[in-house]
Amino acid sequence: MSENTGKVVCGITISADGYVAGPNQTEERPFGDDRGDGWGDRLHAWYSEAAEENEAEIAEMIAASAFIMGRNMFGPVRGEWDREWNGWWGDDPPYHAPVFVLTHHPRAPQPMEGGTTYHFVTDGIESALAQAQAAAGDGDVAIIGGANTVNQYLAAGLIDELRLHISPLTLGAGARLFEGVPPLGLEQVRARAASTVTHVTYRLVKG
Amino acid sequence: MSENTGKVVCGITISADGYVAGPNQTEERPFGDDRGDGWGDRLHAWYSEAAEENEAEIAEMIAASAFIMGRNMFGPVRGEWDREWNGWWGDDPPYHAPVFVLTHHPRAPQPMEGGTTYHFVTDGIESALAQAQAAAGDGDVAIIGGANTVNQYLAAGLIDELRLHISPLTLGAGARLFEGVPPLGLEQVRARAASTVTHVTYRLVKG
Repeated sequence: MSENTGKVVCGITISADGYVAGPNQTEERPFGDDRGDGWGDRLHAWYSEAAEENEAEIAEMIAASAFIMGRNMFGPVRGEWDREWNGWWGDDPPYHAPVFVLTHHPRAPQPMEGGTTYHFVTDGIESALAQAQAAAGDGDVAIIGGANTVNQYLAAGLIDELRLHISPLTLGAGARLFEGVPPLGLEQVRARAASTVTHVTYRLVKG
Repeated sequence: MSENTGKVVCGITISADGYVAGPNQTEERPFGDDRGDGWGDRLHAWYSEAAEENEAEIAEMIAASAFIMGRNMFGPVRGEWDREWNGWWGDDPPYHAPVFVLTHHPRAPQPMEGGTTYHFVTDGIESALAQAQAAAGDGDVAIIGGANTVNQYLAAGLIDELRLHISPLTLGAGARLFEGVPPLGLEQVRARAASTVTHVTYRLVKG
């Protein structure tokens, strides 16, 4: 049992039909096939608007003290770490905290500017969570994506709070939140309509 | 081209993972398997609360001048109409208007009390919509379910406005809204958080 007293939160942007990304993710298309209409940008369009207006949802996203992401979210490199890749977010990533990347291939920790260090975890989601909680002190741990990683944590009952940002479009295919996850009891904590997105926060009902 | 000047609206209650009903719908379980925890009731729990409080979403649901539903929503009878079945809603259904039921099996119109008449349409969704629009005069036509029917109308580009009522639970299996529907452009018209449900209204962006 970790002594961390924070929550395990997960904030993620989804389409109205529940997709987090389209199929066929590549380095040039980090959100998958864009079908020629730039939907990857449209899915996340709310973010820059909200950031400009200093909305609460943005502050909440980066308020965690440690982060966990899947390897596909970290980057397009597959298999061994056979080339330089330090994430999509440049030299000074927005996390300013330890980020634990789930992978099957060991790699030394990668410190970045501004307090972000990427740690590579090869022994599974529980281990990554334990390490993140130890690093977070009394702060929250945020599971930030992609869908496969979030779904594994949901299925294992390890998430306390789910913050959905529902964008006004459907994708019809791709990586879907809740795919393969057994039925969950949710308590609606709050919901808020912004101009181009609906924010809904759920508490996971355990047991 | 119909002369109807109303909108084609669709209001439907979904789980947070987009399901309208569980698998294995029967007469005893109109919302499908309940996994022993009464989720069919929980999915629709918001409705009685909202009705008690005369919320706008309830008035909106019954404001249409004609309704369209699929046969599975109308009832559990499959194949020929070989036994008496006049819907789940008793002698005085809440529609008070013509209701067009999509089926492969012809049946004479069934008048009910209070102005509801069930009409059985065997020649497809476009025909049902044309008949409903003719009956609606200048009023709206509402597509009210189930998922398969709504998805057919969405895929055909025949819905103007989609009103989702998102209940706080996930199902993990069943009949899913948007399943098999090509990507849709949506415009978020409004969203409102009630205590146990989030209402989101989208306008369908055509072309």
